[in-house]
Amino acid sequence: MTLTGHSLIAGQPVVGDGKTAFGFNPATNEVLEPAYTLITDEQLTTATSAAAEAFASFSTLDPETHAAFLDAIAQNIEAIGDDLIIRAGQETGLPAARLQGERARTTGQLRLFAKVVRQGDFRGVRIDPALPDRTPLPRADIRQRQIPLGPVAVFGASNFPLAFSTAGGDTASALAAGCPVVFKAHNAHPGTGELVGQAVVKAVKDFGLHPGVFSLVYGPGSSIGQALVADPAIKAVGFTGSQTAGIALMRTAAARPEPIPVYAEMSSLNPVFVFEGALNRSAEQIKALAQQYVTAVTGSSGQLCTSPGLLFAPEGELGDKLAAAVGRAVSACAGQTMLTGGIASSWNQGAEALGSASGVDVVGQGTAGPTENAPAPTIFGTRISEFVSNNVLHAEIFGAASLVIRYASTEELIAAINRLDGQLTASLQLTEEDYPTAALLIPALEQKVGRIIVNGWPTGVEVGHAMVHGGPFPATSDTRTTSVGTLAINRFLRPVAYQNLPQELLPAPLQDSNPWHLNRRIDGTVDAADVKDEINA
Amino acid sequence: MTLTGHSLIAGQPVVGDGKTAFGFNPATNEVLEPAYTLITDEQLTTATSAAAEAFASFSTLDPETHAAFLDAIAQNIEAIGDDLIIRAGQETGLPAARLQGERARTTGQLRLFAKVVRQGDFRGVRIDPALPDRTPLPRADIRQRQIPLGPVAVFGASNFPLAFSTAGGDTASALAAGCPVVFKAHNAHPGTGELVGQAVVKAVKDFGLHPGVFSLVYGPGSSIGQALVADPAIKAVGFTGSQTAGIALMRTAAARPEPIPVYAEMSSLNPVFVFEGALNRSAEQIKALAQQYVTAVTGSSGQLCTSPGLLFAPEGELGDKLAAAVGRAVSACAGQTMLTGGIASSWNQGAEALGSASGVDVVGQGTAGPTENAPAPTIFGTRISEFVSNNVLHAEIFGAASLVIRYASTEELIAAINRLDGQLTASLQLTEEDYPTAALLIPALEQKVGRIIVNGWPTGVEVGHAMVHGGPFPATSDTRTTSVGTLAINRFLRPVAYQNLPQELLPAPLQDSNPWHLNRRIDGTVDAADVKDEINA
Repeated sequence: MTLTGHSLIAGQPVVGDGKTAFGFNPATNEVLEPAYTLITDEQLTTATSAAAEAFASFSTLDPETHAAFLDAIAQNIEAIGDDLIIRAGQETGLPAARLQGERARTTGQLRLFAKVVRQGDFRGVRIDPALPDRTPLPRADIRQRQIPLGPVAVFGASNFPLAFSTAGGDTASALAAGCPVVFKAHNAHPGTGELVGQAVVKAVKDFGLHPGVFSLVYGPGSSIGQALVADPAIKAVGFTGSQTAGIALMRTAAARPEPIPVYAEMSSLNPVFVFEGALNRSAEQIKALAQQYVTAVTGSSGQLCTSPGLLFAPEGELGDKLAAAVGRAVSACAGQTMLTGGIASSWNQGAEALGSASGVDVVGQGTAGPTENAPAPTIFGTRISEFVSNNVLHAEIFGAASLVIRYASTEELIAAINRLDGQLTASLQLTEEDYPTAALLIPALEQKVGRIIVNGWPTGVEVGHAMVHGGPFPATSDTRTTSVGTLAINRFLRPVAYQNLPQELLPAPLQDSNPWHLNRRIDGTVDAADVKDEINA
Repeated sequence: MTLTGHSLIAGQPVVGDGKTAFGFNPATNEVLEPAYTLITDEQLTTATSAAAEAFASFSTLDPETHAAFLDAIAQNIEAIGDDLIIRAGQETGLPAARLQGERARTTGQLRLFAKVVRQGDFRGVRIDPALPDRTPLPRADIRQRQIPLGPVAVFGASNFPLAFSTAGGDTASALAAGCPVVFKAHNAHPGTGELVGQAVVKAVKDFGLHPGVFSLVYGPGSSIGQALVADPAIKAVGFTGSQTAGIALMRTAAARPEPIPVYAEMSSLNPVFVFEGALNRSAEQIKALAQQYVTAVTGSSGQLCTSPGLLFAPEGELGDKLAAAVGRAVSACAGQTMLTGGIASSWNQGAEALGSASGVDVVGQGTAGPTENAPAPTIFGTRISEFVSNNVLHAEIFGAASLVIRYASTEELIAAINRLDGQLTASLQLTEEDYPTAALLIPALEQKVGRIIVNGWPTGVEVGHAMVHGGPFPATSDTRTTSVGTLAINRFLRPVAYQNLPQELLPAPLQDSNPWHLNRRIDGTVDAADVKDEINA
């Protein structure tokens, strides 16, 4: 595929009337061709109004066409081949193996949502049949389904140029819900964005859908984002990125004449709690634990939403052994290129602030990488008393840094948990002897995180039915939701009830004949598909 | 039961340190004893911190105790007997029959939520079993459930002193979710609030629950409400009332250090669309239709969220016949006492503004009632061209007033629908010959309302599984939800995932043995209760 350097608005390449921007190789600090033309706010409305026009037909697509469309996007992304991996590698500094894995996750996610569309439970059909003989008043026939909210604005993340970007989880779940998407391309990987955008546009065209179902726009940083969220045609927002940017979008959405939901996944320290039992083991096992931690901290240069930024380890000899093993493990690590020079610079500032905080020392440090923007991974250490009293120790450092916090008692741990902001995850390293302690902590952790992990690490977010990639504010803007996994589709739906409609006027999911073979909740109980008899009984 | 005139905070009567307020009989303009002492912001925190303390035990209650507690509240409300109906009648001017019906709805609602708690589907259990042999990476065991958000602030409505007040739909659904409730009593029916509050407090005590599970507070108007929503212990808000008050609470909630969801049900015009076929009938049938409309407009003095404020009727002879029948029907109506003098005064202002708007005339008017605050029901009329061009015609007039809008074409109707704000309901009066027209309108209506009704009236909201009492802003603050029906419980829940937890540390709903006999979604498919074999396969 050829890169044009232009936005893709309702199926057409559109030359932006604004400035231009370039992709940038963070490993070499080289500019990448072509120039990307940035659109103006006026040009943006052509994308949002096309999305609004596309809504009526796209939101009522039959399930098989709808699902096949999602499958086709996955296939079209695979068909780009190595060009996609090469360009994404140039724009992000991420290694090919990581990007290949991320591509598989992206296409797998699209195909999983295709299955969700075919299965249909997300349509949330509820039928309360009429009770004409009820006293004192008869009951009308009432039927409920979930319908899509309308056009969705999606903002991709810098750190997952495929799985959380153009055709990533937010786009996949919004399209699966039946919502057209206007995607604001991330300026840190414009070429990757365009390649994937072309794959989506091709599927829209091949399926004869309204071209407004998908647009990809390049625009100037935050201003185009604010304009997109403020646009009256937009009915919900998906975002992955910084807390500052996410909160700015939340404010804009809340201040609209018609406020809309914002699903922003913003930041997380992902605390790990290591209990005595997990350390009451051989030196080899402690070494392995330390290595796993350092791998989780340094993988993808630490640029993962779920990278563990805190590790609570006991005071005393066992904790000392772990800290020493962590120090040795990290000292063997070389820095990897970070996504952008700006991110590397933020990392340096964050690491300096943490390193110079009172009561914080360095547990171990690796070496700077051979490329530009590849700072030395660093593990800091402190006492839990410092952690609960100093906000600096609660700031996320996006990248390969983490803080080992030494604790003396379960009470201290609970106090520290209660002091935490909302997080995506918490992980517990334990053996059976630690169960009583863990049982005390878990209820407190449930109030702070979206996912609790035992004897594992928070990185590597499984895309499935049970996953929650979410959590209380400020980890996300809306703790009632997840941005990963099939439950993510619920973010883009709303219920509508239909009272006493004749069969001819009912939407397909609600008709007695159940043409879409959906599971439906009849009088509060889920029956298997095709419940015609129960309704007519 | 004796009225104390005090707040009920964590099971104890608390004398407010602020001013006092009295109930007021709107039919006689008489003050009702006792004086109610209003609490200060400082006293409020004793209620919110007790709610926070109660959360851990209440949110993990076993389903049977939890459900029996809700049943007991219903029973305790019934046990108050006629005292409740008498006091509520004095405070609201509503007739006894209406209040008896509302009491039945309130207790029925509590018992329905008890069934929801016993049945357990709201716990949203999803289990993706481990796949240790999967390549390239094994899958961990991941389990998800919905947990309650935390303490909820509830604000009751003036117009439903029972069903949307102290132990109404918001309180019932929040308690069913496992959230403690701090209820801000409505100052227009303080005695009714206290009687019901005592019934809830008795159930909390009888079941040995933490007293912070429920508090009822009397405070000065909006300031205590703002303080309650801003309180860090509060994690969600349920509200029914005016748009001004609802939007003020939304703003406060969004501006908190930790923003929280607000479920505000605020306003609705509930348009009714009458098609030609429905009028191509005998004079008797047209008279009946007109009478039903006028009854829906004037019942409970029009003080219902779903009272029809707009009726679209065709131009020409058939529409003329309907308008004439409406005029005759309303002229036979006497005004009924409104809930408060303030509401009656707002009604007068609204009716005057509408009546003096350009192109608006009076279709018919009843007579003022024999009591205070009982203005004459009035039906206004206009052309659809005025409606689409004048915002005054879109303002809700809370009370017995409505506007008949004459249209000439389906195109005009669609333009008028697109011009509407979000509404709770839309109703269609039609016969089979109107189906093609209705089919054109329904997709547009779905974007504007939460419930579509055919050949019925929007008043009389059924409390069931399929009901949606919600709709796009500004009908509600959150179009993804309903405040009536069993789906309302979802407003107070959030998902948490548990990865690789040993059975001993898993919460009951997620354990292999399924001790609560829940339906659970295994690998995306809902299986019947007790799925132990599937998990262990």
